[in-house]
Amino acid sequence: MRWSGPSRSLRGSPVRPDLYDGTEPGRDGLYAIAHRALELRAGAAPKRFPGMRLAALFLNPSLRTRMSVEAACGALGVQPMVSQPGTQSWGWELRRGAVMDGPDPEHVIDAVRVLSGYADILAVRAFATMDPAFDRADPVLAAFREESSVPVLNLESTRFHPLQGLADAATLVSRLGDPVGRKLVLSWAPHPKPLPTAVANQVLTTASLLGMDVTVACPEGWDLDPEVVAATGPRICHDQREAFEGAAVVVAKSWSPFGKPAQSDVHHEWRIEREKLGGAGFMHCLPVRRNVVVTDEVLDASWVYETAHLRMWTAMAALERMLEGSWT
Amino acid sequence: MRWSGPSRSLRGSPVRPDLYDGTEPGRDGLYAIAHRALELRAGAAPKRFPGMRLAALFLNPSLRTRMSVEAACGALGVQPMVSQPGTQSWGWELRRGAVMDGPDPEHVIDAVRVLSGYADILAVRAFATMDPAFDRADPVLAAFREESSVPVLNLESTRFHPLQGLADAATLVSRLGDPVGRKLVLSWAPHPKPLPTAVANQVLTTASLLGMDVTVACPEGWDLDPEVVAATGPRICHDQREAFEGAAVVVAKSWSPFGKPAQSDVHHEWRIEREKLGGAGFMHCLPVRRNVVVTDEVLDASWVYETAHLRMWTAMAALERMLEGSWT
Amino acid sequence: MRWSGPSRSLRGSPVRPDLYDGTEPGRDGLYAIAHRALELRAGAAPKRFPGMRLAALFLNPSLRTRMSVEAACGALGVQPMVSQPGTQSWGWELRRGAVMDGPDPEHVIDAVRVLSGYADILAVRAFATMDPAFDRADPVLAAFREESSVPVLNLESTRFHPLQGLADAATLVSRLGDPVGRKLVLSWAPHPKPLPTAVANQVLTTASLLGMDVTVACPEGWDLDPEVVAATGPRICHDQREAFEGAAVVVAKSWSPFGKPAQSDVHHEWRIEREKLGGAGFMHCLPVRRNVVVTDEVLDASWVYETAHLRMWTAMAALERMLEGSWT
Repeated sequence: MRWSGPSRSLRGSPVRPDLYDGTEPGRDGLYAIAHRALELRAGAAPKRFPGMRLAALFLNPSLRTRMSVEAACGALGVQPMVSQPGTQSWGWELRRGAVMDGPDPEHVIDAVRVLSGYADILAVRAFATMDPAFDRADPVLAAFREESSVPVLNLESTRFHPLQGLADAATLVSRLGDPVGRKLVLSWAPHPKPLPTAVANQVLTTASLLGMDVTVACPEGWDLDPEVVAATGPRICHDQREAFEGAAVVVAKSWSPFGKPAQSDVHHEWRIEREKLGGAGFMHCLPVRRNVVVTDEVLDASWVYETAHLRMWTAMAALERMLEGSWT
Repeated sequence: MRWSGPSRSLRGSPVRPDLYDGTEPGRDGLYAIAHRALELRAGAAPKRFPGMRLAALFLNPSLRTRMSVEAACGALGVQPMVSQPGTQSWGWELRRGAVMDGPDPEHVIDAVRVLSGYADILAVRAFATMDPAFDRADPVLAAFREESSVPVLNLESTRFHPLQGLADAATLVSRLGDPVGRKLVLSWAPHPKPLPTAVANQVLTTASLLGMDVTVACPEGWDLDPEVVAATGPRICHDQREAFEGAAVVVAKSWSPFGKPAQSDVHHEWRIEREKLGGAGFMHCLPVRRNVVVTDEVLDASWVYETAHLRMWTAMAALERMLEGSWT
Repeated sequence: MRWSGPSRSLRGSPVRPDLYDGTEPGRDGLYAIAHRALELRAGAAPKRFPGMRLAALFLNPSLRTRMSVEAACGALGVQPMVSQPGTQSWGWELRRGAVMDGPDPEHVIDAVRVLSGYADILAVRAFATMDPAFDRADPVLAAFREESSVPVLNLESTRFHPLQGLADAATLVSRLGDPVGRKLVLSWAPHPKPLPTAVANQVLTTASLLGMDVTVACPEGWDLDPEVVAATGPRICHDQREAFEGAAVVVAKSWSPFGKPAQSDVHHEWRIEREKLGGAGFMHCLPVRRNVVVTDEVLDASWVYETAHLRMWTAMAALERMLEGSWT
């Protein structure tokens, strides 16, 4: 609402401080956010933005993201306005030029144009549908980024989950001190349902930006998005024990093979267990299927609660930047 | 909660500052709200009402209304408390004296009596059911107005949508300067579903109160509520092109014929297109079916986004009055 | 979040100021809360807790509880963060050690551990399922109390509804002055659906703690939880008219017989009517089935609206204590 508008932000400088895939702050900015989050957690006073508002639209359920963003807003003096259009609002038409005689009463571009008049940040969650053609285009986020006149915050899309990435980064800084060059393994894990790749993409993106040494461990054929793999350059390894050798941290996540029909799994031998980890830390974005993805024993002693709590502090640190109008 | 109560408000003076059909402020008050909204939009500081609360119950979905009212509350230092009883609370019995052995666990009069102890303004949305006998009585709003001890704000009922009316008024002042005597056409438009007449009623009520020259354009047989038509006195015209001649602004809306079985339409030739409008501005309350009600081309160049954004500023201006306890 | 943690709170002193069954403040504390609530209602300034947050999870619908707690938070300068996991978030696994390959994606212990990092109080509603074995364990509240690192507020569980108890206490003080030794009758009442015993348990617990002379009136076989009856020691009477003799107040509630298959009722002669009450006041937690549980005539002249309004003021008084970290 106070941002000077898309004509300036999308075409020229300064760049509008969106948070879509977590790379926007750059490496220095990412470290700065991680350090600022740890400072806030230790008791530093958050900056205050009285009179500012964040509108958050959850097209899918949320517990951690919703609560941590609401809490971060409150700490910054920002008014959070949270809605779940799926149940509380309208279905959205996504196709440009559509003749809207179907079930959806509103076009996403109209919703975005309107809402960006009410808030200083527009935040939106729109999960993958597991239809690769649809998910690839990340169409809800694309519409928000194109049509909003204020910065856009991705609350997890078909492709990325940047707020999780920031909390992962702060956890890695908190636990490892300097993560540069340390080995992070993203391990595929069993799960009763086929899951999207947004979180896995985010782990690769964040760890790569942090300068870590990244390995993906997954069964043969359970590939990730080749575009993200190409951009982030991890080693791929189909032997989990070999992959875990020398790891400072293992991040587990299930995903359905990219670009193939959705499938879940029977590779129960990929479950994360204590003896596999050696001295490595364990991370997961939560929610997690206990004793399917990972044993109780590993989870209860893991870093996952620190990461989940850092969701609030990193959201606060990121919103400070976004509300000041620049990542740099 | 702080209002002195229904005994004073419903029986004597001062009149409780409800907003039900948008006529409560009177003509001068309506213009004052429009001008105040434009002043607030230009940067004037809103009045502050610390410690006050607005409880909003949405029995139907909402995006614009919910977000704009929440934002307005925040700007005024008022705590918004939003609930959607349909999914988050109880079904309400509406009949006085009912033996409540059916599915609804609470009587609306008890809900209203309780809630008016928690808030300084009670706001409620209850759409038309398309059952004319039920809708005519506007029973949820009637119960709120009768039983509340604090001012009642209509968030769109079976019959009126006054917050939309205020935003329309501010748009007309913004665009036309002085709307008095200028020609406004309310044009029926095609739509895949039968729709209620609340917004159409509101357009007639607002435009008439503003002192505009009002024409209704609709196909033969697609009549509006005769009571509202009688109260507002528009010209009725069944030829869209003739109706549009000399118009300063065209407001489009679909509706199902009043008092007849719900129906939608096949009069696609009533779609709003650029060549029909001449120099007239185009308004619509949103959400809108693009390329069914109106073409992309018209919509993208229309006044609808200004109106939608003014929803927040006019809600702020109206709430300032309501919280001060008087429209005058 | 700021509480020093479960190791201290669950094992030693100081005791963490949870509110589970309403006995935590003790008799003096209960009277203090009632008096403080009446003082706040009369205009005393609430204490302020800027920067603090209350997270409220409603696994079941709520109108009064949600709105009164949100309003109380606002008055105290506390940020309320309200979610309804049933529709807006995740289903929760409740069994320790479960292999989570079923439908629920998150374990309650992980949800609680995470959320207690975002808020200063965790509040939760989880109604009875009418499966006695499940309800007896009050498993959601048990998990919250075990795993939270901050005080836990019960918003109505399978067994207790302490915020209702506080409002009842304040009403009794407001109406009776000194309730000690005065006769309170908890009367079973007819209802079209089988209902849980949480509210009945709460009435017995609160009235007993207040030092009242308590009688339960119910048909033969419609027993309450024997553990609660043993702890609170009411007289049991199967003749409603006899039970009502000399009563200062009658509290009506329907319940399904404890520990038996869920059943509702045909004892319409147990409906509360004016001639049965004599001079006794009438209370009910609401929502109430008018003309099934109680006649319109009795309800409209009853204390129920005062109690409902006191929900906000007693919540405020209780939260003042909880946020200060001690009931005493």
